[in-house]
Amino acid sequence: DFLEALQEVKPAFGAATNTLEMCRLYGMLDCGPRHKRILETGLALVEQVKSSERTPLLSCLIEGPSGSGKTALAATIALDSGFPFIKVVSAESMVGLSESSKCGIIAKTFDDAYRSPLNIIILDDIERILEFVNIGPRFSNLILQTLLVLVKRTPPKGRKLLVIGTTSMRNVLDSMDLVSAFNVALHAPTLNHEDMRRVMVSLNVFAPRDVDSALEILDEEMSIKKLLMLVEMAAQGKDGEGAEAVYAGKEKINLQRFVECYNDLAS
Amino acid sequence: DFLEALQEVKPAFGAATNTLEMCRLYGMLDCGPRHKRILETGLALVEQVKSSERTPLLSCLIEGPSGSGKTALAATIALDSGFPFIKVVSAESMVGLSESSKCGIIAKTFDDAYRSPLNIIILDDIERILEFVNIGPRFSNLILQTLLVLVKRTPPKGRKLLVIGTTSMRNVLDSMDLVSAFNVALHAPTLNHEDMRRVMVSLNVFAPRDVDSALEILDEEMSIKKLLMLVEMAAQGKDGEGAEAVYAGKEKINLQRFVECYNDLAS
Amino acid sequence: DFLEALQEVKPAFGAATNTLEMCRLYGMLDCGPRHKRILETGLALVEQVKSSERTPLLSCLIEGPSGSGKTALAATIALDSGFPFIKVVSAESMVGLSESSKCGIIAKTFDDAYRSPLNIIILDDIERILEFVNIGPRFSNLILQTLLVLVKRTPPKGRKLLVIGTTSMRNVLDSMDLVSAFNVALHAPTLNHEDMRRVMVSLNVFAPRDVDSALEILDEEMSIKKLLMLVEMAAQGKDGEGAEAVYAGKEKINLQRFVECYNDLAS
Amino acid sequence: DFLEALQEVKPAFGAATNTLEMCRLYGMLDCGPRHKRILETGLALVEQVKSSERTPLLSCLIEGPSGSGKTALAATIALDSGFPFIKVVSAESMVGLSESSKCGIIAKTFDDAYRSPLNIIILDDIERILEFVNIGPRFSNLILQTLLVLVKRTPPKGRKLLVIGTTSMRNVLDSMDLVSAFNVALHAPTLNHEDMRRVMVSLNVFAPRDVDSALEILDEEMSIKKLLMLVEMAAQGKDGEGAEAVYAGKEKINLQRFVECYNDLAS
Amino acid sequence: DFLEALQEVKPAFGAATNTLEMCRLYGMLDCGPRHKRILETGLALVEQVKSSERTPLLSCLIEGPSGSGKTALAATIALDSGFPFIKVVSAESMVGLSESSKCGIIAKTFDDAYRSPLNIIILDDIERILEFVNIGPRFSNLILQTLLVLVKRTPPKGRKLLVIGTTSMRNVLDSMDLVSAFNVALHAPTLNHEDMRRVMVSLNVFAPRDVDSALEILDEEMSIKKLLMLVEMAAQGKDGEGAEAVYAGKEKINLQRFVECYNDLAS
Amino acid sequence: DFLEALQEVKPAFGAATNTLEMCRLYGMLDCGPRHKRILETGLALVEQVKSSERTPLLSCLIEGPSGSGKTALAATIALDSGFPFIKVVSAESMVGLSESSKCGIIAKTFDDAYRSPLNIIILDDIERILEFVNIGPRFSNLILQTLLVLVKRTPPKGRKLLVIGTTSMRNVLDSMDLVSAFNVALHAPTLNHEDMRRVMVSLNVFAPRDVDSALEILDEEMSIKKLLMLVEMAAQGKDGEGAEAVYAGKEKINLQRFVECYNDLAS
Ligand SMILES: Nc1ncnc2c1ncn2[C@@H]1O[C@H](COP(=O)(O)OP(=O)(O)OP(=O)(O)O)[C@@H](O)[C@H]1O
Ligand SMILES: Nc1ncnc2c1ncn2[C@@H]1O[C@H](COP(=O)(O)OP(=O)(O)OP(=O)(O)O)[C@@H](O)[C@H]1O
Ligand SMILES: Nc1ncnc2c1ncn2[C@@H]1O[C@H](COP(=O)(O)OP(=O)(O)OP(=O)(O)O)[C@@H](O)[C@H]1O
Ligand SMILES: Nc1ncnc2c1ncn2[C@@H]1O[C@H](COP(=O)(O)OP(=O)(O)OP(=O)(O)O)[C@@H](O)[C@H]1O
Ligand SMILES: Nc1ncnc2c1ncn2[C@@H]1O[C@H](COP(=O)(O)OP(=O)(O)OP(=O)(O)O)[C@@H](O)[C@H]1O
Ligand SMILES: Nc1ncnc2c1ncn2[C@@H]1O[C@H](COP(=O)(O)OP(=O)(O)OP(=O)(O)O)[C@@H](O)[C@H]1O
Ligand SMILES: [Mg+2]
Ligand SMILES: [Mg+2]
Ligand SMILES: [Mg+2]
Ligand SMILES: [Mg+2]
Ligand SMILES: [Mg+2]
Ligand SMILES: [Mg+2]
Repeated sequence: DFLEALQEVKPAFGAATNTLEMCRLYGMLDCGPRHKRILETGLALVEQVKSSERTPLLSCLIEGPSGSGKTALAATIALDSGFPFIKVVSAESMVGLSESSKCGIIAKTFDDAYRSPLNIIILDDIERILEFVNIGPRFSNLILQTLLVLVKRTPPKGRKLLVIGTTSMRNVLDSMDLVSAFNVALHAPTLNHEDMRRVMVSLNVFAPRDVDSALEILDEEMSIKKLLMLVEMAAQGKDGEGAEAVYAGKEKINLQRFVECYNDLAS
Repeated sequence: DFLEALQEVKPAFGAATNTLEMCRLYGMLDCGPRHKRILETGLALVEQVKSSERTPLLSCLIEGPSGSGKTALAATIALDSGFPFIKVVSAESMVGLSESSKCGIIAKTFDDAYRSPLNIIILDDIERILEFVNIGPRFSNLILQTLLVLVKRTPPKGRKLLVIGTTSMRNVLDSMDLVSAFNVALHAPTLNHEDMRRVMVSLNVFAPRDVDSALEILDEEMSIKKLLMLVEMAAQGKDGEGAEAVYAGKEKINLQRFVECYNDLAS
Repeated sequence: DFLEALQEVKPAFGAATNTLEMCRLYGMLDCGPRHKRILETGLALVEQVKSSERTPLLSCLIEGPSGSGKTALAATIALDSGFPFIKVVSAESMVGLSESSKCGIIAKTFDDAYRSPLNIIILDDIERILEFVNIGPRFSNLILQTLLVLVKRTPPKGRKLLVIGTTSMRNVLDSMDLVSAFNVALHAPTLNHEDMRRVMVSLNVFAPRDVDSALEILDEEMSIKKLLMLVEMAAQGKDGEGAEAVYAGKEKINLQRFVECYNDLAS
Repeated sequence: DFLEALQEVKPAFGAATNTLEMCRLYGMLDCGPRHKRILETGLALVEQVKSSERTPLLSCLIEGPSGSGKTALAATIALDSGFPFIKVVSAESMVGLSESSKCGIIAKTFDDAYRSPLNIIILDDIERILEFVNIGPRFSNLILQTLLVLVKRTPPKGRKLLVIGTTSMRNVLDSMDLVSAFNVALHAPTLNHEDMRRVMVSLNVFAPRDVDSALEILDEEMSIKKLLMLVEMAAQGKDGEGAEAVYAGKEKINLQRFVECYNDLAS
Repeated sequence: DFLEALQEVKPAFGAATNTLEMCRLYGMLDCGPRHKRILETGLALVEQVKSSERTPLLSCLIEGPSGSGKTALAATIALDSGFPFIKVVSAESMVGLSESSKCGIIAKTFDDAYRSPLNIIILDDIERILEFVNIGPRFSNLILQTLLVLVKRTPPKGRKLLVIGTTSMRNVLDSMDLVSAFNVALHAPTLNHEDMRRVMVSLNVFAPRDVDSALEILDEEMSIKKLLMLVEMAAQGKDGEGAEAVYAGKEKINLQRFVECYNDLAS
Repeated sequence: DFLEALQEVKPAFGAATNTLEMCRLYGMLDCGPRHKRILETGLALVEQVKSSERTPLLSCLIEGPSGSGKTALAATIALDSGFPFIKVVSAESMVGLSESSKCGIIAKTFDDAYRSPLNIIILDDIERILEFVNIGPRFSNLILQTLLVLVKRTPPKGRKLLVIGTTSMRNVLDSMDLVSAFNVALHAPTLNHEDMRRVMVSLNVFAPRDVDSALEILDEEMSIKKLLMLVEMAAQGKDGEGAEAVYAGKEKINLQRFVECYNDLAS
C-alpha cells in the first residue's frame, strides 16, 4: 500500500492538473496589487526560462504566512505557463513514507523533468516536505540536502526547468541556506483591510452597509484562507439553514453571527 | 498479536459506538453554559460540513485541562451527528505499536473516511497519539507530520469530513503548529463552584445542607473527572459498606470522609 | 533464553505469591501511624473497586524515598485483598529485555487482567521499569507511553482492576504526567526517631538502656531498609561470631560496633 | 536505480570534462586581479605536484561566499592542468545516497587516483558533500572523517595527486579541522564595483552612460553569480520579448527593469 | 570470533583465580591503615553473607582515585573469602561486544551465582563496564539499568551473594543512583607521604638516606600504581642496564633519574 | 572491497616497515633538543619493557600540535627498537569502515601482539581513530572504550608490549580519561627560531645571508611539517622551473617567492 507511493507521479495532463485546480476551490479572487505582482513576476520567469539559453534553470520561492494564498499562486503560475510537464512535490502525497522514500520521489521528479523540454516543479510547503517542527528543531536532513542540491542542479542541454517553492517559514529555510539556493524570493502577504474589502465586495455576501462594520471587527491583517473560512461559517447561519441563500444573494450574513464565528477560529 | 492492531478499525455501527458510549459512563450531566456552548458549536460544524460545498473539510480542536470532559464532549458531538462513519484514533487502541504502524493506522483511517460521504474522525488525546513527554521534550515527529498533513488534506470530490481533536496540552500543540492546522479551537474548562454545585445537586448524594460545606472544602476549580471520582470514593464509606445506599438515596455522603478522600487524590 | 521472558507471567497462586512474600523477608513490623494509614487507604480502594460499578478501574501510587517500605506496603495490600489474580510488573523480571519486549510484557499483563473479574497489578519501582536515569535524563518513552495509556484504560464490562504503583522519584513521574494518571497518591516516609524506637524495641536486639544512645547516634530520619540492614550488620559482631546469639536474645548489639557499621553504609 | 551511483565514476576524457565545462556556462570573464591570482597559484601547485618528488600530494582549498566563482575556478585549474585523470566529487552526483555509499564513492575516487600517475580530484562544495546544515549543527561525521584522512593520505610511490576543495563555509570547515588538512587556502571574493564594471563592460549589455547608474544601484559587493543572473533577468525585458536583442547588441538593458529585478533576487 | 565472548565465563578454580592473582603482580604490600580497614570490612561482609539468613545479598562498593589499588583490594577479599565461586565482570573481558551482549554476560554471571551456595561477583571498574565517558556524558543505559536491578535482586532461597564493585568515579555513579544501590561504600585513598615511605622502605630500592629526599620531590599524594611504576622506571637506569641490580639490592635508585622519570609520568 | 580491511594486518617485516619509512619521507633532520629527548625516552621505555618482569606493558603518548613530527618520532622509536612485531593502527588504513569493524581491527592487533614476545603497537592520530570532531563534540564511544581497556590490559605471561600513541588533541583525550591511561606522556613541540635555523641550514637551500631574513618573516613558532612544505613550495620557483636546481645547490630560494608562499599556507 505505502509502496505504491513510490510509483510514477501521475502525468500532468491528467490528475496533476486536477490537483492544481483543487488548490483554488473558490477560483481566484482579486486579493490586491501585492498578490498580483507575484503572478506577474512568476510569469516573467516562465518566459525567461523558456527563451534564455543561459538560464536553463530558474527557481523562485513564494513565502508568506500560513493561508496567505501561496499554493494558489504557485498553481496559477504553473497552470498559466502552458508548460507540458508540471509536477507537484508535496507532503500530502507522501504521507507516512520514510525519509529515503521521499528523497527517492523528489529525485525522480527532477529526473523526469530532465527528460522533457519545458518543466515546472512545485515544491509545496517546503517545511512540511522537510518534516520540520520547531521543537528541537527537528527535520529531515536527508531531504534538506536533496533539495539543496536539486534546486541548484543545472538540467542537461536543451532542458528547461522552473522550480517554484512555497513556505510559511522563510526564517527557517534561511537558516538552512535554502532561501539563497533560489534565484528569486517573493512575499505573499496577509490581506490588509483594503484587500479584505475587495474580497468581501466581490463575494457579495454582506449587506453593503455592513462591510465597514464587519471590517471594524476584524484585526488589521488576516489571511485569505481565514477570511474565506469565516465568511463561510457565518453564511451558514446559526440554525443550520445553510449558506445557499446567502451565496445566492437572497440573504446577507448576520453581523452578530460573524463575530461569534470569528472568536472560534483557531489563531 | 500486536500485528492485529494493523487490521481494520471496527465499523462504527458496532464496537465503535460502544466505545463512544464508554466515554460517558455516567451519562452526560449538565456541567454549565461553557460546556454547553462547545456542544452547540460542534453541531453547527456538523451542519456546515454536511451542507457546504466549499468546506468539504472542517476541523475543530477541543482543548482544556486533564479530566475536563473533552473526550465526552467529542463523543457526544459525534454520536449526535448522525453521520454513518465515526472513527476514533486514540493511543489506547495502538498500545505498543511502532511509530510507523501508528502512522499507518492513522492514514488508513483517513483513507477510509474518503470513501464514505459523511465522516467524523476523533483524534483523542493528541499528545498521547504523538507519544509526547515534556522531558526533552520528546514525541514522534513521524506521527506529528502525518497529522499536520492529514488534518489539512481536502477529501476527494463528494466526500465530507469533520475532524475533532482533543488535547490537554494546547501550548505544546501550538508550538508544533498543530493548533493552527485546525479551523476552530474550543476551550473545555474545569468546573467552577457554580458548575460543581449543579453537578452535586443532580447527583443527589449530599444532604442539601451539606452541599455548601462540601464546596467550601474544595479548590476554586476542579475537573468533572476529579469531582465524580471524589464523590464515588466518599460515597463508598470508610468501612467498605458500599456506595449503593448513597446512590439509592438512602444515605448521604459523610463530610469528614469527603475531606479525607479529597486529600488522597493525586494532584 | 531472553525470549523466555516473553512467556506467560507465572500464576499468582504459585510463584507470584512467593515473590510477594519475599518482599517482606522480616515479616511486617509496626513502622508507625503513617505507614499504617497507607495500608488502610489501600484496602479501602480494594473495597471500592470490588463493589462500585462506576469505578471499574482504580489506581494508586505509593511514593517515597528509597527503602521506605513501598514495595512491602504494595505487597501487603495485594496479599490482603484476597483477589484471585495479582500480577507484579518489575524491572527485576525483565532484565536485559528490549524496550519493546518490556512493553509487550506490560501490555500482556493488563490484557490478562481484563479476562478475570478482580485484579491487582503492581507496577513496582516505576522509574526502573522506565529505565530512567537522571543523566540526560534518559528513559524509555516507549514504556512511558504504554504506562500512561494502560493506567487510564477502562477494563471491559464486568472486569475490575486496581493498579498499585511504587516509585522513589515522584518528581520525575510528575514531570512525565504519570502521577496525575493515578487517582490516588500516598506518601511512604522514612522513619523518624519515634518510628525507629518502635522498630528497635520490637526487634529486641539492644539492651534497653542502649536504645536511646543508639538513636542519638542516628540521623533524624532513616529508611526502614537501612535501619534493618544496620541492625543486622551490627548484630553480626566484629569477629564474625554471627548474629544468632543476638536474635536469640542471648546477647545485645555492641554500640561501638553499631557506630562503625553506620559509617560504612552507602548514603 | 540508486545503486547505480555506486558504479565507476565516468572517465575524465568523456563526461567529466563536459561536466567541468558546464561549470562555466558563460565562458570565463575577467573578474579582476583577485580571481586571477587564484588561477596562478593553482597552476603553480599543478607544476609542483608534477615535478617535486617530495610532495607527491598537494591540497588546496578555494573558499569564499556563495556564487563567488569557486567551482568555475577549480574547474579552470583542472582543465588547464593537462592531467589525464580529473575527478569531481560533488553532492550533485550522489543525491539520495546513504552516508556510507557516499564514503564508498569518495574512497574509490581516491583509490582510482592512486593508479594513475598525475591526478586531480575536485571536492566541490565540501559542506554539501558533508550534508552540513547549520541547525544543530548536523553533518555526516562518517564523510568528514573520510575526507580528513584522504586529504592527508600520501599516494603510493610514483603517483601524484592534487586535491582542490571548494567551500562557502570556511569557518565551519575550520572548526572541523578540515581547513588545516589542506596545504594551501585561497580566498575567492565577491566582486567589488571595479570588478563589476569590468564584467558589465565586457558583456556589453548596458548603454555606456548607464553603467555608472547601474553600479550606483547595487550594493558594494556582489557575487559573480548574482550579477550574471541579474543581467540576464533584466535583459529579458518586462514583456517577455527575450534577451537576444540585448545580447546581440541591438538593444540595451532598461535601468528601471534592472532595479525591479534586483529587488526580487533572493538575498 | 566475538560471539565466543558470549560463552561461559571460565570456572573460578582455573583461569579466574589466575586473573585475580594477576591483579596483584607485586604481591600485596602494606599501604597503611586506611587500606587495611577496607580489607577488614570486606571480610566482615564475607562472614555476614555466609552466616545471616536475613541478608542473603550484600553489596559493597570500593571507590577511589585511579590506581589507588581498588581492584587489588577486591581481588584480595575474594581470594581470602574461600567462597567456591568467584566471578569477575570487567570491561577487559568484553572488548568490542555490543551493549546487549554485555548485558547478557552480566545477567548470566548473576544467574550462575544463584545456582551455587556461596558466591562473590566483582564488578570491576564499573564506569568502564558502563562505557562511560565524561563528554556528553555518554554511557550505556542498558547496562546501567541491568546493574541497578541485579545489584539489588535477592538471590533465591539458600543462595548467598556478595557483590563487590570498584569505581574511580563515585560522583558519576552517585548521579546514576548506583552508589545507593550498594549497602556499603568504602573509600580507597591515594597514598600520603607516610604510606609512601612504608612502601619505599619495604621495596628496599633506595639508599636509606635517599628516602626522605625522594619523598620531598613527590606531591603530597600519589596512587600506589604510580609510585610502583615510578620506582620501576627509575630502577631501570638511564643506560638500560636493567633494574635487576636494584631489586637484588646491589644498587640503589639514582635520585636524579628518579626526578626525570617523575616528570614524564602522564598525570 | 571494504570487507578486505578486516583481514590480517600485514606482517611487520614487509609492508608495515615500508609504511613506517614513509612517515619520514625526508629522512630525520635534527629538530633540536626537545625532539631528541622524546627519542631517548622512547628508547628507554623500549629497554624497560624488554627487561623488566614487573612491567610487561608500557604505554607512552606523544602529543603536540598538528605537523610537529609526532608520527615520525613514533615511527623512529619503533624502527630503532629492533622488536620483531611492530603494528600501526591508524585511521588511514580503516577508511570507511564501521565503528565495530574498526574495533575489531584494533582488538585483533592487540590479540596478535599477545602471541609474540616483543611488540610495539602505534596508535597513530588517536583523535582520528576515534572519529573525533569538535562540533558536538562527536566521536565513537565504542572505539574509545576499546582503547581505554586495551591500553591498560596486561598481556599474558611472557609477552611484552609497548604502546605508543600520538595525538594533536591532548585536551580532548584528557577529558576522555585517555591520557591517564598511558604511563608516560611526552610533548612534541613546534619549532622555535633556533630549531628552524637548524633545519634550514641543514637543508642548504637559502643563501647564507638569507637565513636570518627568512626567519624574520616567519612567526615565532612553526611546525616541522609546515616549514618543509614552505621550503618546497618556495624552491619550486614562480615559473615552474622546478626545485631540482635548488636542492642540487645550484640555486637558492628567492625570498620574495618565500613570502608569497607563506601567505598561501592554510593556517
Ligand atoms: N486569490 C484567491 N482567490 C480565492 N481563493 C483563494 C485565493 N488565494 C487563496 N485562496 C484560497 O484560500 C485558501 C488558502 O490558500 P492557499 O492554500 O493557497 O494558501 P497557502 O498560503 O498555501 O496556505 P498554507 O500556508 O496553509 O500552505 C485556499 O482554500 C485557496 O483556495
Ligand atoms: N458532562 C458529563 N457528565 C457526566 N460525566 C462526564 C461529563 N463529562 C465528562 N464526564 C466523565 O468525566 C470523566 C472525564 O471525562 P473525559 O474523559 O471526557 O475528560 P477528558 O478531558 O477527555 O480527560 P483527559 O484529559 O484525561 O483525556 C469521564 O469518566 C467521563 O465519563
Ligand atoms: N513494615 C516492615 N516490617 C519489616 N520489614 C519491612 C517493612 N517494610 C519494609 N521492610 C523491609 O525493608 C526493606 C525495604 O523495603 P521495601 O523494599 O519495601 O522498600 P522500598 O521503599 O520498596 O525500597 P526501594 O526504594 O529500594 O524500592 C525490605 O527488605 C523489606 O522487607
Ligand atoms: N569568471 C567567470 N566568468 C564567467 N562566468 C563565471 C565566472 N565565474 C563564475 N561564473 C559563473 O557564475 C556562476 C557561479 O559560479 P560558481 O558556480 O563557480 O560559483 P561558486 O562560488 O562555486 O558558487 P556556489 O557557492 O554556489 O558553489 C556560474 O554560473 C558560473 O558559470
Ligand atoms: N597493596 C598493594 N601492594 C602491591 N601492589 C599493589 C597494591 N595495591 C595495588 N597494587 C598494584 O598497583 C597497581 C594498581 O592497583 P589496582 O589496579 O588495584 O588499582 P585500581 O585502583 O583498581 O586502578 P584503576 O583505577 O586503574 O582501576 C596494580 O599493578 C596492582 O598490582
Ligand atoms: N625530524 C624530521 N626530519 C625530517 N622530516 C620530518 C621530521 N619530523 C617530521 N618530518 C616530516 O614532517 C612531516 C610532518 O611530520 P609528522 O607527520 O610526523 O607530524 P605529525 O605531528 O604526526 O602530524 P599530524 O599532526 O598531522 O599527525 C612529515 O612529512 C614528516 O616526514
Ligand atoms: Mg500552501
Ligand atoms: Mg480525553
Ligand atoms: Mg521497592
Ligand atoms: Mg560551487
Ligand atoms: Mg581497577
Ligand atoms: Mg601524525
